[in-house]
Amino acid sequence: MQKNFPLTKAQLESLIAKYPTPFHIYDESIIRRNIRRLKAAFDWAAEFREYFAVKACPNPRIVEILASEGAGTDCSSTAELCISEMAGVVGEKIMLTSNDTPAEEFRKARELGAVINLDDITHIEFLERCAGLPDCLSFRYNPADIMNDGNEIIGRPAEAKYGLTRAQIFDAYRMALDKGVRRFGLHTMIVSNELETEAFIRTAEIMFELAVELKTRLGIEVEFINLGGGIGLPYRLDQEPVDLASVGTGIRMSYNNILRAADLEPALAFESGRAMTGDAGWLVSTVLHKKETYKNYVGLDACMANLMRPALYGAYHHITVAGKENAPLDHIYDVTGSLCENNDKFAIDRRLPEIERGDIVIIHDTGAHGHAMGFNYNGKLRSAELLLKADGSVEMIRRAETLDDYFATLRIK
Amino acid sequence: MQKNFPLTKAQLESLIAKYPTPFHIYDESIIRRNIRRLKAAFDWAAEFREYFAVKACPNPRIVEILASEGAGTDCSSTAELCISEMAGVVGEKIMLTSNDTPAEEFRKARELGAVINLDDITHIEFLERCAGLPDCLSFRYNPADIMNDGNEIIGRPAEAKYGLTRAQIFDAYRMALDKGVRRFGLHTMIVSNELETEAFIRTAEIMFELAVELKTRLGIEVEFINLGGGIGLPYRLDQEPVDLASVGTGIRMSYNNILRAADLEPALAFESGRAMTGDAGWLVSTVLHKKETYKNYVGLDACMANLMRPALYGAYHHITVAGKENAPLDHIYDVTGSLCENNDKFAIDRRLPEIERGDIVIIHDTGAHGHAMGFNYNGKLRSAELLLKADGSVEMIRRAETLDDYFATLRIK
Repeated sequence: MQKNFPLTKAQLESLIAKYPTPFHIYDESIIRRNIRRLKAAFDWAAEFREYFAVKACPNPRIVEILASEGAGTDCSSTAELCISEMAGVVGEKIMLTSNDTPAEEFRKARELGAVINLDDITHIEFLERCAGLPDCLSFRYNPADIMNDGNEIIGRPAEAKYGLTRAQIFDAYRMALDKGVRRFGLHTMIVSNELETEAFIRTAEIMFELAVELKTRLGIEVEFINLGGGIGLPYRLDQEPVDLASVGTGIRMSYNNILRAADLEPALAFESGRAMTGDAGWLVSTVLHKKETYKNYVGLDACMANLMRPALYGAYHHITVAGKENAPLDHIYDVTGSLCENNDKFAIDRRLPEIERGDIVIIHDTGAHGHAMGFNYNGKLRSAELLLKADGSVEMIRRAETLDDYFATLRIK
Repeated sequence: MQKNFPLTKAQLESLIAKYPTPFHIYDESIIRRNIRRLKAAFDWAAEFREYFAVKACPNPRIVEILASEGAGTDCSSTAELCISEMAGVVGEKIMLTSNDTPAEEFRKARELGAVINLDDITHIEFLERCAGLPDCLSFRYNPADIMNDGNEIIGRPAEAKYGLTRAQIFDAYRMALDKGVRRFGLHTMIVSNELETEAFIRTAEIMFELAVELKTRLGIEVEFINLGGGIGLPYRLDQEPVDLASVGTGIRMSYNNILRAADLEPALAFESGRAMTGDAGWLVSTVLHKKETYKNYVGLDACMANLMRPALYGAYHHITVAGKENAPLDHIYDVTGSLCENNDKFAIDRRLPEIERGDIVIIHDTGAHGHAMGFNYNGKLRSAELLLKADGSVEMIRRAETLDDYFATLRIK
């Protein structure tokens, strides 16, 4: 998988003159391409919905772009519901999938008319009590009864805090029916950052069979089946992107063989985050220092406050140097940030061209779970977010944090 | 090691009526006890300094308490320098130990008159250029040449981005001498959250021998030797606290045998964070939900935004339930937060008393690297910080974040 960056070094330098590094920059065109590809893979479905996982890139401008392509939002907190609202995405274009949900979050979701996806059977009564039951309810299924694997990031279903057991699923729909709910959806989320086609097809089969069983046992015809997110990104050069066309074709077969064969034709939904914005974002940073001790280090003006994935998961993010894209990779560096944590390294023993102070380093694939996961440890500040628009202009869609922001909660009147 | 909480259930309930959960609460008396114990262990030294590691609990009120006991501050960023300043700790009561340091941070440190501890030999000229050289300089030594182990959290010295090699240390002091610097310190930081006496004594020996070599080879008599932080906390009941008296006695022997034998009598310094505030803090949270699926879950109104250590490091934090301190531990729960990350669990398979919705859960030892490391992923907000003062009254020393805080950087004029 080749890694590109949409600006030349000269363009980048003039951008930096206006917006100092570090910053994340997102490419509108790639975001649009990503959602169009996903929709194309499912254009055979009676209805296809993408609920963008706001947590991946919780910026209203990004949500707006996806909404203009028909996407809704997958929200998991009150703040994310508000971001969706700011972007003009309301009503059943929102799906609230949260766990251990506080009452005010359910109330906000009801106020916005969101589809509510319950994580636990006890949440039916909790929701009824604190916000009233909506017209349409969905439940999150945890398939630990028939699936032992899961994947590396999301873990084994039996160890996952999420969702209802198979037995509870039927009890939950029955209880909701008894309470007068008439429209239903079904949800699961089994994998995360998954690249293999088979995982998505297998997930769909499990859910389609469950939908048929819901019809047989309870007479419920679900309006939609949300297969969750989890479409991975080829962060490494030797990885290939998910073959969405194959995923679509595989799921289509199961859809026909299982659902249509049972006279069911629900909408299909995904709640992709990473697949929408992951490869549409880059963290741009300037080299502050070079250090040669027991190893060779390149110190950036960004740190794990701006991108946690390498420190948190040991995740690989490809790195290039502006203007040195074709230079030989004949040096080996640890690329570090300035946090007082030894794991504040964007890369360890990475082959790179020779780097000098002042070089502009581009960290790829930061458009999902990048800025969003940043913390303020060591009093480090989170960066700005820029949007490279389809017309080539750049808009600042989030300003950088200031010390005043960092100290805001200390000001107690 | 027994785990206590300073308030009765009734006191806690009336506190919560005023300050809703979740919050961290810190006990001033324990903070004072902690620094007094540390100072007592080194009362034999010509001079003993504790530079409180602000990163552990970056709240000016906490810094003030420690400063009133004679502590200075260990700062690693511009924000931490400002916190020190807010608390009235300026001049050489501050030691700046950072890495990959930006110019503005050196300028702020110079403005405040801080002792500057350089992480790399190239920083001498960088500091000179951007802020001018101070009267007193210190260098951070990375002892990978004579030490292969380090410990679990801080990693092997040879893989650590911090400090100067042995050869560079001598070059650096020589270069500083040539540039007119006349007062010197010496610094290292080898272990983190360490409980064994031997580790601290071994660190001291290495540094004392280096100080003698600096005198022999360069004629430099360092004014202080900073042994770093790393004094651990017995998070688990079966762990014992660091025997500070033994550490003091062991270091005293080396001090006499190595330093005094060479006619050196530098001040000794530590930069403790965890040992000052770790066991003086608790995260107080209310049970929102109970969930029984493939395991039994207790869902809190706190999440990893308030305390990252369990999710990040798998760290153990002891948990008690207000009013059920003596109840039998006959239930097993995963204690979770509400983040859409399956590792958002404060405890896994923990033996606890039977827990009901509305119970108040107390998570122990959150006074260091607790609130400070919180992120806003999923749009989750960071909690308030309360101070239980020596007179029994409670002061809010940081308010809880609001959605407005979270959205602040989206407001671009």
